[in-house]
Amino acid sequence: MDFTEEQSADVVVASFENTTDPRLKEVMSSAVRHLHAFVREVRPTNAEWMEAIEFLTAVGQACTETRQEFILFSDTMGVSMLVETINGAAGSLPEYDEALAPTEPTVLGPFHMTASPERQLGDLLNATGDGTPLVVEGQVTDILGNPLPGARVDTWHADGAGWYDVQPEGGLPLGTGRGIFTADAEGRYWYRTVLPRYYPIPVDGPAGALVVREGREPYRPAHLHFIVEAEGFQPLTTHVFVSDCEYIERDVVFAVKSSLIRDFTQVDDAAEAERYGVTAPFRRVRFDVVLVPCGD
Amino acid sequence: MDFTEEQSADVVVASFENTTDPRLKEVMSSAVRHLHAFVREVRPTNAEWMEAIEFLTAVGQACTETRQEFILFSDTMGVSMLVETINGAAGSLPEYDEALAPTEPTVLGPFHMTASPERQLGDLLNATGDGTPLVVEGQVTDILGNPLPGARVDTWHADGAGWYDVQPEGGLPLGTGRGIFTADAEGRYWYRTVLPRYYPIPVDGPAGALVVREGREPYRPAHLHFIVEAEGFQPLTTHVFVSDCEYIERDVVFAVKSSLIRDFTQVDDAAEAERYGVTAPFRRVRFDVVLVPCGD
Ligand SMILES: [Fe+2]
Ligand SMILES: [Fe+2]
Repeated sequence: MDFTEEQSADVVVASFENTTDPRLKEVMSSAVRHLHAFVREVRPTNAEWMEAIEFLTAVGQACTETRQEFILFSDTMGVSMLVETINGAAGSLPEYDEALAPTEPTVLGPFHMTASPERQLGDLLNATGDGTPLVVEGQVTDILGNPLPGARVDTWHADGAGWYDVQPEGGLPLGTGRGIFTADAEGRYWYRTVLPRYYPIPVDGPAGALVVREGREPYRPAHLHFIVEAEGFQPLTTHVFVSDCEYIERDVVFAVKSSLIRDFTQVDDAAEAERYGVTAPFRRVRFDVVLVPCGD
Repeated sequence: MDFTEEQSADVVVASFENTTDPRLKEVMSSAVRHLHAFVREVRPTNAEWMEAIEFLTAVGQACTETRQEFILFSDTMGVSMLVETINGAAGSLPEYDEALAPTEPTVLGPFHMTASPERQLGDLLNATGDGTPLVVEGQVTDILGNPLPGARVDTWHADGAGWYDVQPEGGLPLGTGRGIFTADAEGRYWYRTVLPRYYPIPVDGPAGALVVREGREPYRPAHLHFIVEAEGFQPLTTHVFVSDCEYIERDVVFAVKSSLIRDFTQVDDAAEAERYGVTAPFRRVRFDVVLVPCGD
């Protein structure tokens, strides 16, 4: 079989004839067919091909222990959100009359690059003091509302100026705005922190620079990240979004789902603030998490 | 427009509405559509998505000043050869009754990572002495056979054990097996070197390791690389392949074209060897190059 423009994908796929791992064979064959279709469609010059090589190389080289530029590129291309959408489909949930809707997943994002510190319920995640105090509370349950005691709640978020601890420009000590909590006997968790601001994805690397070149606004609406796990249940990676953020309808990584938006209510009452160990005025949000049981 | 599995590509493409560079908009829109179609087809788990992220990151991180792992990955996926095939189409050549066929292009490959030293016609490119002596000679002309005096001939190749100078395992001084020649008044060039061996692509990096995991033979048939340039003509990136190499029909990067295969003739005659300044027995190949004029 000749390597012609029409047959190129067939020739490459034929080279997988001795691939013993069936999933690898399926994925690589599909990758070749779609990649060759893309090349046939855009007909890159040699110089454009080299520009693509240099772009992808730069994305890989921008990755460090605390920076994942390929996740960022996957995010801005909508690929991460598509993968989440495919895997988050409820599928074969048991049918109940009064079941709660499982909490929807969304993207992991590029900033889960350092282990969150183990925290005690009520701990303060951001001790720098800048920004509006925030109280986050919620309960982890199954779809029937049964609490999941001991559920593990990993959370991380930007600070009041939009920086994550892993971004050196923010000057935050590692662990700021991050924590792993163990829910109590009622499946409840709570912590104190600061209200995160919307933020631009980093545009000093190739993935962010491409977004700028594309004329897109590089912003993500204000949010808190969560990974919630409990034994016998599917791990959930998600966000809760701040409803009154100006970027709520134009997230550069397409991760907003309406079910994940919450009002972060302003509380002015000093007694209420004292109850939580914060100062008024502060914001408060309740984010309950409903997990789906593992399949058979 | 909701970000659903069906509409995800439309949502991302809509984010390019303010992209002012029309070619960038075209390429990125096509990339998004094909990438999302690939994801919808293979339906990766989150773990598989992360494996892909880690693979691409490793490809980028394997690149150094003398190693280009993303070109290697493009090569082994047949993408480089497809780009060459698209751009090498003769297209709108002037029609002549007795025109020569333009020399066909093939892939650049990942080893053109260091500037070749400028050489004099007849120079010895490989002074290590291992391997069979080889004499390479040819003439650069236009499609009517008119010589192109002063044509620039950049050539590079592996040694008799299959190593390039940029591969530290081979232990070759940089510049070995490499040279840039200026053709004489008749468009002729010639040089002395050693017969290159077939070689495995490097399998100690992610791109080569994937080829092994795919159950493919990682070999490239023996060849010499060329980039030939002359003023007023399209630069040509190509190879000449050694006809009696066992891998000639199964190049891991799909780069062999029958028009680029030559007999590397064995010469046993001592007088002939002396004429070229080599020792008998040696091999000799003639590789004439026909360039295409630049378009208007
Ligand atoms: Fe984030
Ligand atoms: Fe080569």
